[in-house]
Amino acid sequence: MKPLRPGRSFLFRLPKGSDIGVEVAAACRRAKVRCAWVQAIGATTKARLGYYDQRRRRYFEKEFRGEMEILHCVGNVSLKDGVPFAHLHAALGDGKYRVWGGHLFASEVFAAEVLIQELRGPAPVRLPDPATGLSLWGLPAARPRR
Amino acid sequence: MKPLRPGRSFLFRLPKGSDIGVEVAAACRRAKVRCAWVQAIGATTKARLGYYDQRRRRYFEKEFRGEMEILHCVGNVSLKDGVPFAHLHAALGDGKYRVWGGHLFASEVFAAEVLIQELRGPAPVRLPDPATGLSLWGLPAARPRR
Amino acid sequence: MKPLRPGRSFLFRLPKGSDIGVEVAAACRRAKVRCAWVQAIGATTKARLGYYDQRRRRYFEKEFRGEMEILHCVGNVSLKDGVPFAHLHAALGDGKYRVWGGHLFASEVFAAEVLIQELRGPAPVRLPDPATGLSLWGLPAARPRR
Repeated sequence: MKPLRPGRSFLFRLPKGSDIGVEVAAACRRAKVRCAWVQAIGATTKARLGYYDQRRRRYFEKEFRGEMEILHCVGNVSLKDGVPFAHLHAALGDGKYRVWGGHLFASEVFAAEVLIQELRGPAPVRLPDPATGLSLWGLPAARPRR
Repeated sequence: MKPLRPGRSFLFRLPKGSDIGVEVAAACRRAKVRCAWVQAIGATTKARLGYYDQRRRRYFEKEFRGEMEILHCVGNVSLKDGVPFAHLHAALGDGKYRVWGGHLFASEVFAAEVLIQELRGPAPVRLPDPATGLSLWGLPAARPRR
Repeated sequence: MKPLRPGRSFLFRLPKGSDIGVEVAAACRRAKVRCAWVQAIGATTKARLGYYDQRRRRYFEKEFRGEMEILHCVGNVSLKDGVPFAHLHAALGDGKYRVWGGHLFASEVFAAEVLIQELRGPAPVRLPDPATGLSLWGLPAARPRR
Protein backbone atom coordinates (compact mmCIF):
# COMPACT_ATOMS: atom_id res chain seq x y z
CA MET A 1 0.00 0.00 0.00
CA LYS A 2 1.86 3.04 -1.30
CA PRO A 3 1.03 6.37 0.31
CA LEU A 4 -0.39 9.29 -1.62
CA ARG A 5 0.31 12.87 -0.64
CA PRO A 6 -2.10 15.80 -0.23
CA GLY A 7 -2.39 17.97 -3.33
CA ARG A 8 -4.61 20.96 -4.08
CA SER A 9 -7.91 21.59 -2.32
CA PHE A 10 -10.92 23.02 -4.11
CA LEU A 11 -13.68 24.56 -2.01
CA PHE A 12 -16.66 26.01 -3.83
CA ARG A 13 -20.37 26.50 -3.96
CA LEU A 14 -22.50 24.82 -6.58
CA PRO A 15 -25.12 26.87 -8.40
CA LYS A 16 -28.82 26.16 -7.89
CA GLY A 17 -30.04 23.34 -10.09
CA SER A 18 -26.65 21.72 -10.63
CA ASP A 19 -25.77 18.06 -10.01
CA ILE A 20 -23.04 17.33 -7.46
CA GLY A 21 -21.54 14.28 -9.19
CA VAL A 22 -21.53 15.93 -12.61
CA GLU A 23 -19.95 19.12 -11.27
CA VAL A 24 -17.32 17.32 -9.21
CA ALA A 25 -16.23 15.18 -12.16
CA ALA A 26 -16.20 18.25 -14.43
CA ALA A 27 -14.17 20.30 -11.95
CA CYS A 28 -11.64 17.46 -11.71
CA ARG A 29 -11.39 17.15 -15.48
CA ARG A 30 -10.77 20.88 -15.85
CA ALA A 31 -8.20 21.04 -13.06
CA LYS A 32 -6.57 17.76 -14.14
CA VAL A 33 -7.29 16.07 -10.80
CA ARG A 34 -6.88 12.31 -11.22
CA CYS A 35 -7.64 11.25 -7.67
CA ALA A 36 -9.41 13.01 -4.80
CA TRP A 37 -11.58 12.64 -1.73
CA VAL A 38 -14.85 14.58 -1.88
CA GLN A 39 -17.23 15.93 0.75
CA ALA A 40 -20.26 18.21 0.51
CA ILE A 41 -23.10 19.66 2.54
CA GLY A 42 -26.08 21.73 1.38
CA ALA A 43 -29.64 21.08 0.28
CA THR A 44 -31.31 19.40 -2.67
CA THR A 45 -34.52 20.04 -4.57
CA LYS A 46 -34.32 16.52 -5.99
CA ALA A 47 -32.07 13.49 -5.68
CA ARG A 48 -31.88 9.94 -7.00
CA LEU A 49 -30.49 7.44 -4.54
CA GLY A 50 -29.38 3.88 -5.22
CA TYR A 51 -29.14 0.66 -3.25
CA TYR A 52 -27.00 -2.18 -4.55
CA ASP A 53 -28.60 -5.59 -4.36
CA GLN A 54 -25.53 -7.70 -3.66
CA ARG A 55 -27.09 -10.99 -4.73
CA ARG A 56 -28.83 -9.84 -7.91
CA ARG A 57 -25.83 -7.64 -8.66
CA ARG A 58 -27.80 -4.62 -9.70
CA TYR A 59 -28.69 -1.22 -8.37
CA PHE A 60 -32.20 -0.27 -7.39
CA GLU A 61 -32.99 3.44 -7.56
CA LYS A 62 -35.45 5.84 -6.06
CA GLU A 63 -36.11 9.48 -6.73
CA PHE A 64 -36.57 11.82 -3.77
CA ARG A 65 -38.42 14.90 -4.93
CA GLY A 66 -38.88 16.72 -1.68
CA GLU A 67 -36.54 19.45 -0.51
CA MET A 68 -33.85 17.85 1.63
CA GLU A 69 -30.83 18.91 3.64
CA ILE A 70 -27.64 17.24 2.43
CA LEU A 71 -26.39 16.03 5.79
CA HIS A 72 -23.30 14.85 4.04
CA CYS A 73 -22.21 13.67 0.66
CA VAL A 74 -18.96 11.69 0.82
CA GLY A 75 -16.94 9.87 -1.80
CA ASN A 76 -14.05 10.04 -4.15
CA VAL A 77 -12.83 10.68 -7.65
CA SER A 78 -10.58 8.29 -9.54
CA LEU A 79 -9.95 7.44 -13.18
CA LYS A 80 -12.37 5.12 -14.96
CA ASP A 81 -11.68 4.53 -18.64
CA GLY A 82 -9.12 7.32 -18.41
CA VAL A 83 -11.43 10.08 -17.14
CA PRO A 84 -12.23 11.32 -13.61
CA PHE A 85 -15.22 9.45 -12.21
CA ALA A 86 -17.05 10.49 -9.03
CA HIS A 87 -18.33 7.81 -6.64
CA LEU A 88 -20.55 9.45 -4.03
CA HIS A 89 -22.84 8.36 -1.21
CA ALA A 90 -25.27 10.73 0.47
CA ALA A 91 -27.48 11.06 3.54
CA LEU A 92 -30.41 13.44 3.13
CA GLY A 93 -32.61 14.92 5.85
CA ASP A 94 -36.29 15.72 5.35
CA GLY A 95 -38.54 18.29 7.07
CA LYS A 96 -39.21 15.88 9.92
CA TYR A 97 -35.46 15.44 10.50
CA ARG A 98 -35.63 11.85 9.28
CA VAL A 99 -32.71 10.65 7.21
CA TRP A 100 -32.63 8.81 3.88
CA GLY A 101 -29.52 7.63 2.12
CA GLY A 102 -27.79 5.62 -0.55
CA HIS A 103 -25.49 5.77 -3.52
CA LEU A 104 -25.96 9.23 -5.08
CA PHE A 105 -26.91 8.68 -8.72
CA ALA A 106 -28.17 12.18 -9.44
CA SER A 107 -28.95 15.38 -7.60
CA GLU A 108 -30.34 18.83 -8.17
CA VAL A 109 -29.03 21.19 -5.51
CA PHE A 110 -30.66 24.20 -3.92
CA ALA A 111 -27.18 25.11 -2.70
CA ALA A 112 -24.12 23.01 -1.90
CA GLU A 113 -20.65 23.54 -0.49
CA VAL A 114 -18.11 21.12 -1.85
CA LEU A 115 -14.56 20.19 -0.85
CA ILE A 116 -12.33 18.29 -3.27
CA GLN A 117 -9.04 17.17 -1.70
CA GLU A 118 -6.62 16.08 -4.41
CA LEU A 119 -4.42 13.06 -3.68
CA ARG A 120 -1.16 12.81 -5.59
CA GLY A 121 0.95 9.76 -6.27
CA PRO A 122 0.15 6.14 -7.19
CA ALA A 123 -3.63 6.53 -7.36
CA PRO A 124 -6.06 3.63 -7.68
CA VAL A 125 -7.98 3.19 -10.94
CA ARG A 126 -11.49 1.76 -11.45
CA LEU A 127 -11.75 -1.58 -13.23
CA PRO A 128 -14.58 -4.09 -13.58
CA ASP A 129 -14.58 -6.40 -10.54
CA PRO A 130 -16.05 -9.82 -11.34
CA ALA A 131 -16.45 -10.78 -7.66
CA THR A 132 -18.95 -7.98 -6.91
CA GLY A 133 -20.26 -6.91 -10.31
CA LEU A 134 -19.07 -3.37 -9.59
CA SER A 135 -16.36 -1.12 -10.98
CA LEU A 136 -13.74 -1.07 -8.21
CA TRP A 137 -10.13 -0.25 -7.48
CA GLY A 138 -7.66 -3.12 -7.70
CA LEU A 139 -6.72 -4.58 -4.35
CA PRO A 140 -3.22 -3.58 -3.27
CA ALA A 141 -0.54 -6.27 -3.65
CA ALA A 142 0.14 -6.14 0.07
CA ARG A 143 -3.45 -5.70 1.07
CA PRO A 144 -4.64 -5.27 4.63
CA ARG A 145 -4.92 -8.60 6.41
CA ARG A 146 -6.59 -9.63 9.62
CA MET B 1 -11.69 28.06 -9.48
CA LYS B 2 -8.40 28.74 -7.73
CA PRO B 3 -6.98 25.93 -5.61
CA LEU B 4 -6.36 26.24 -1.90
CA ARG B 5 -3.59 24.34 -0.16
CA PRO B 6 -3.70 22.28 3.04
CA GLY B 7 -2.67 24.21 6.14
CA ARG B 8 -2.60 23.22 9.79
CA SER B 9 -4.79 20.48 11.23
CA PHE B 10 -6.34 20.72 14.67
CA LEU B 11 -7.53 17.53 16.33
CA PHE B 12 -9.03 17.80 19.79
CA ARG B 13 -11.66 16.67 22.21
CA LEU B 14 -14.45 18.97 23.32
CA PRO B 15 -15.29 19.16 27.01
CA LYS B 16 -18.65 17.85 28.26
CA GLY B 17 -21.38 20.43 27.90
CA SER B 18 -19.71 22.45 25.17
CA ASP B 19 -21.25 23.40 21.82
CA ILE B 20 -19.48 22.15 18.68
CA GLY B 21 -20.20 25.18 16.47
CA VAL B 22 -19.25 27.67 19.17
CA GLU B 23 -16.02 25.85 20.00
CA VAL B 24 -15.00 25.38 16.37
CA ALA B 25 -15.52 29.07 15.58
CA ALA B 26 -13.65 30.06 18.77
CA ALA B 27 -10.74 27.72 18.01
CA CYS B 28 -10.47 29.21 14.51
CA ARG B 29 -10.55 32.76 15.85
CA ARG B 30 -7.78 32.00 18.34
CA ALA B 31 -5.59 30.19 15.81
CA LYS B 32 -6.35 32.76 13.07
CA VAL B 33 -7.86 30.14 10.78
CA ARG B 34 -9.87 31.91 8.06
CA CYS B 35 -11.03 28.88 6.13
CA ALA B 36 -11.30 25.20 7.05
CA TRP B 37 -13.16 21.95 6.57
CA VAL B 38 -14.57 20.50 9.79
CA GLN B 39 -15.57 16.98 10.87
CA ALA B 40 -16.57 15.54 14.23
CA ILE B 41 -17.89 12.40 15.89
CA GLY B 42 -19.00 11.86 19.49
CA ALA B 43 -22.22 12.04 21.45
CA THR B 44 -24.66 14.77 22.47
CA THR B 45 -26.84 15.32 25.50
CA LYS B 46 -28.85 17.86 23.53
CA ALA B 47 -28.93 19.27 20.01
CA ARG B 48 -30.98 21.73 17.97
CA LEU B 49 -31.36 20.78 14.33
CA GLY B 50 -32.67 22.93 11.51
CA TYR B 51 -34.42 22.35 8.21
CA TYR B 52 -34.49 25.10 5.61
CA ASP B 53 -37.84 25.65 3.95
CA GLN B 54 -36.70 26.62 0.47
CA ARG B 55 -39.98 28.25 -0.53
CA ARG B 56 -40.71 30.19 2.64
CA ARG B 57 -36.99 30.97 2.92
CA ARG B 58 -36.73 30.30 6.59
CA TYR B 59 -35.32 27.70 8.91
CA PHE B 60 -37.50 25.48 11.04
CA GLU B 61 -35.85 24.14 14.17
CA LYS B 62 -36.30 21.24 16.55
CA GLU B 63 -34.60 20.41 19.82
CA PHE B 64 -33.47 16.82 20.40
CA ARG B 65 -33.07 16.29 24.12
CA GLY B 66 -32.24 12.60 24.22
CA GLU B 67 -28.70 11.31 24.35
CA MET B 68 -27.51 10.72 20.81
CA GLU B 69 -24.43 9.44 19.04
CA ILE B 70 -22.96 12.02 16.66
CA LEU B 71 -22.64 9.78 13.62
CA HIS B 72 -20.95 12.65 11.94
CA CYS B 73 -20.89 16.39 11.98
CA VAL B 74 -19.54 17.87 8.76
CA GLY B 75 -19.11 21.41 7.53
CA ASN B 76 -16.76 24.30 7.15
CA VAL B 77 -15.49 27.56 8.52
CA SER B 78 -15.21 30.71 6.44
CA LEU B 79 -15.31 34.43 7.11
CA LYS B 80 -18.68 36.13 7.57
CA ASP B 81 -18.58 39.82 8.43
CA GLY B 82 -14.84 39.40 8.93
CA VAL B 83 -14.93 36.63 11.57
CA PRO B 84 -14.74 32.82 11.31
CA PHE B 85 -18.23 31.35 10.97
CA ALA B 86 -18.96 27.63 11.28
CA HIS B 87 -21.57 26.04 8.98
CA LEU B 88 -22.26 22.50 10.18
CA HIS B 89 -24.70 19.70 9.37
CA ALA B 90 -25.12 16.68 11.63
CA ALA B 91 -26.59 13.18 11.68
CA LEU B 92 -27.46 11.89 15.15
CA GLY B 93 -28.23 8.31 16.17
CA ASP B 94 -30.66 7.42 18.94
CA GLY B 95 -30.84 4.34 21.22
CA LYS B 96 -32.78 2.43 18.59
CA TYR B 97 -30.07 3.15 16.00
CA ARG B 98 -32.43 5.43 14.07
CA VAL B 99 -30.89 8.53 12.56
CA TRP B 100 -32.02 12.15 12.70
CA GLY B 101 -30.33 15.03 10.95
CA GLY B 102 -30.26 18.61 9.80
CA HIS B 103 -28.41 21.89 9.99
CA LEU B 104 -26.68 21.96 13.39
CA PHE B 105 -27.86 25.12 15.15
CA ALA B 106 -26.74 24.20 18.66
CA SER B 107 -25.35 21.24 20.54
CA GLU B 108 -24.33 20.17 24.00
CA VAL B 109 -21.82 17.37 23.79
CA PHE B 110 -21.21 14.43 26.11
CA ALA B 111 -17.89 14.04 24.33
CA ALA B 112 -16.74 14.94 20.83
CA GLU B 113 -13.64 14.49 18.70
CA VAL B 114 -13.14 17.28 16.20
CA LEU B 115 -10.89 17.73 13.18
CA ILE B 116 -10.33 21.17 11.69
CA GLN B 117 -8.38 21.11 8.43
CA GLU B 118 -7.20 24.60 7.54
CA LEU B 119 -7.30 25.64 3.89
CA ARG B 120 -4.91 28.38 2.79
CA GLY B 121 -5.13 30.63 -0.21
CA PRO B 122 -7.98 32.47 -1.94
CA ALA B 123 -10.74 31.39 0.46
CA PRO B 124 -14.45 31.96 -0.16
CA VAL B 125 -16.31 34.47 2.04
CA ARG B 126 -19.96 34.39 3.13
CA LEU B 127 -22.25 37.06 1.68
CA PRO B 128 -26.03 37.41 1.59
CA ASP B 129 -27.38 35.49 -1.42
CA PRO B 130 -30.67 36.96 -2.70
CA ALA B 131 -31.50 33.88 -4.80
CA THR B 132 -31.72 31.52 -1.81
CA GLY B 133 -32.18 33.82 1.19
CA LEU B 134 -29.05 32.29 2.75
CA SER B 135 -25.57 33.55 3.49
CA LEU B 136 -23.41 31.82 0.89
CA TRP B 137 -20.04 31.93 -0.80
CA GLY B 138 -19.85 33.82 -4.09
CA LEU B 139 -19.94 31.60 -7.14
CA PRO B 140 -16.54 31.29 -8.84
CA ALA B 141 -16.07 33.36 -12.00
CA ALA B 142 -15.39 30.20 -13.99
CA ARG B 143 -17.95 28.12 -12.17
CA PRO B 144 -18.52 24.42 -12.79
CA ARG B 145 -20.78 23.87 -15.80
CA ARG B 146 -22.66 20.86 -17.06
CA MET C 1 -3.99 23.53 21.13
CA LYS C 2 -0.94 22.71 19.03
CA PRO C 3 -1.48 22.21 15.32
CA LEU C 4 -0.72 18.97 13.53
CA ARG C 5 0.34 18.86 9.90
CA PRO C 6 -0.94 16.69 7.04
CA GLY C 7 1.13 13.54 6.49
CA ARG C 8 0.66 10.63 4.12
CA SER C 9 -2.73 9.65 2.69
CA PHE C 10 -3.73 6.04 2.16
CA LEU C 11 -6.60 5.32 -0.22
CA PHE C 12 -7.54 1.71 -0.77
CA ARG C 13 -10.27 -0.85 -1.23
CA LEU C 14 -11.02 -3.43 1.41
CA PRO C 15 -11.50 -7.05 0.35
CA LYS C 16 -14.91 -8.70 0.66
CA GLY C 17 -15.51 -10.05 4.15
CA SER C 18 -13.00 -7.79 5.92
CA ASP C 19 -13.71 -5.57 8.92
CA ILE C 20 -13.14 -1.82 8.49
CA GLY C 21 -11.89 -1.11 12.00
CA VAL C 22 -9.56 -4.10 12.06
CA GLU C 23 -8.12 -3.27 8.65
CA VAL C 24 -7.69 0.43 9.40
CA ALA C 25 -5.84 -0.28 12.65
CA ALA C 26 -3.69 -2.93 10.93
CA ALA C 27 -2.85 -0.62 8.02
CA CYS C 28 -1.80 2.09 10.51
CA ARG C 29 0.35 -0.35 12.48
CA ARG C 30 2.12 -1.52 9.33
CA ALA C 31 2.70 2.00 8.00
CA LYS C 32 3.61 3.36 11.45
CA VAL C 33 0.75 5.86 11.44
CA ARG C 34 0.20 7.11 15.00
CA CYS C 35 -2.63 9.53 14.34
CA ALA C 36 -5.06 9.89 11.44
CA TRP C 37 -8.54 10.88 10.34
CA VAL C 38 -10.47 8.11 8.62
CA GLN C 39 -13.39 8.07 6.18
CA ALA C 40 -14.98 5.26 4.18
CA ILE C 41 -17.93 4.47 1.92
CA GLY C 42 -19.05 1.11 0.53
CA ALA C 43 -21.46 -1.63 1.52
CA THR C 44 -21.67 -4.18 4.32
CA THR C 45 -23.00 -7.70 4.52
CA LYS C 46 -23.08 -7.40 8.31
CA ALA C 47 -22.35 -4.76 10.95
CA ARG C 48 -22.51 -4.38 14.71
CA LEU C 49 -23.47 -0.90 15.86
CA GLY C 50 -23.25 0.49 19.38
CA TYR C 51 -25.06 3.14 21.38
CA TYR C 52 -23.49 4.49 24.55
CA ASP C 53 -25.84 4.82 27.49
CA GLN C 54 -24.41 7.93 29.10
CA ARG C 55 -26.02 7.34 32.50
CA ARG C 56 -25.33 3.62 32.87
CA ARG C 57 -21.93 4.17 31.29
CA ARG C 58 -22.05 1.20 29.03
CA TYR C 59 -22.48 0.41 25.36
CA PHE C 60 -25.53 -1.36 24.00
CA GLU C 61 -24.97 -3.21 20.76
CA LYS C 62 -27.04 -4.47 17.87
CA GLU C 63 -26.13 -6.61 14.90
CA PHE C 64 -27.42 -5.58 11.47
CA ARG C 65 -27.36 -8.61 9.20
CA GLY C 66 -28.96 -7.20 6.10
CA GLU C 67 -26.96 -5.85 3.20
CA MET C 68 -26.44 -2.13 3.72
CA GLU C 69 -24.85 0.78 1.93
CA ILE C 70 -22.14 2.43 4.04
CA LEU C 71 -23.33 6.03 3.64
CA HIS C 72 -20.27 7.06 5.55
CA CYS C 73 -17.93 5.72 8.14
CA VAL C 74 -16.03 8.50 9.91
CA GLY C 75 -13.54 8.50 12.75
CA ASN C 76 -9.93 8.54 13.71
CA VAL C 77 -6.89 6.57 14.74
CA SER C 78 -4.80 7.42 17.76
CA LEU C 79 -2.58 5.52 20.17
CA LYS C 80 -4.19 3.55 23.00
CA ASP C 81 -1.83 1.56 25.18
CA GLY C 82 0.88 2.33 22.63
CA VAL C 83 -0.84 0.88 19.55
CA PRO C 84 -3.01 2.48 16.84
CA PHE C 85 -6.68 2.29 17.83
CA ALA C 86 -9.54 3.07 15.43
CA HIS C 87 -12.62 4.90 16.73
CA LEU C 88 -15.31 4.84 14.05
CA HIS C 89 -18.97 5.82 13.72
CA ALA C 90 -21.10 4.73 10.80
CA ALA C 91 -24.41 5.44 9.06
CA LEU C 92 -25.81 2.54 7.05
CA GLY C 93 -28.60 2.63 4.47
CA ASP C 94 -31.01 -0.25 3.90
CA GLY C 95 -32.97 -1.28 0.79
CA LYS C 96 -35.73 1.17 1.65
CA TYR C 97 -33.21 4.03 1.85
CA ARG C 98 -33.72 4.27 5.62
CA VAL C 99 -30.64 5.01 7.68
CA TRP C 100 -29.30 3.31 10.81
CA GLY C 101 -26.25 4.36 12.72
CA GLY C 102 -24.01 4.21 15.76
CA HIS C 103 -20.55 3.44 17.02
CA LEU C 104 -19.08 0.88 14.61
CA PHE C 105 -18.03 -2.11 16.70
CA ALA C 106 -17.62 -4.62 13.88
CA SER C 107 -18.31 -4.87 10.17
CA GLU C 108 -18.07 -7.30 7.31
CA VAL C 109 -17.82 -5.42 4.04
CA PHE C 110 -19.09 -6.32 0.59
CA ALA C 111 -16.72 -3.64 -0.69
CA ALA C 112 -15.35 -0.48 0.89
CA GLU C 113 -13.23 2.47 -0.15
CA VAL C 114 -11.18 3.89 2.70
CA LEU C 115 -9.20 7.10 3.14
CA ILE C 116 -6.67 7.40 5.98
CA GLN C 117 -5.24 10.90 6.34
CA GLU C 118 -2.18 10.82 8.59
CA LEU C 119 -1.71 13.72 11.00
CA ARG C 120 1.83 14.45 12.15
CA GLY C 121 2.99 16.30 15.23
CA PRO C 122 1.81 16.41 18.85
CA ALA C 123 -0.99 13.83 18.50
CA PRO C 124 -3.57 13.13 21.20
CA VAL C 125 -3.46 9.77 22.99
CA ARG C 126 -6.38 7.75 24.43
CA LEU C 127 -6.59 7.48 28.21
CA PRO C 128 -9.36 6.36 30.55
CA ASP C 129 -11.67 9.31 31.25
CA PRO C 130 -13.38 9.01 34.64
CA ALA C 131 -15.98 11.70 33.84
CA THR C 132 -17.54 9.75 30.95
CA GLY C 133 -16.42 6.16 31.51
CA LEU C 134 -14.85 6.19 28.04
CA SER C 135 -11.31 6.10 26.70
CA LEU C 136 -10.72 9.64 25.48
CA TRP C 137 -8.03 12.10 24.48
CA GLY C 138 -6.80 14.44 27.20
CA LEU C 139 -8.30 17.91 27.02
CA PRO C 140 -5.86 20.52 25.71
CA ALA C 141 -4.27 22.75 28.35
CA ALA C 142 -5.69 25.80 26.61
CA ARG C 143 -8.96 24.18 25.66
CA PRO C 144 -11.62 25.84 23.53
CA ARG C 145 -13.74 28.22 25.61
CA ARG C 146 -17.05 29.84 25.00
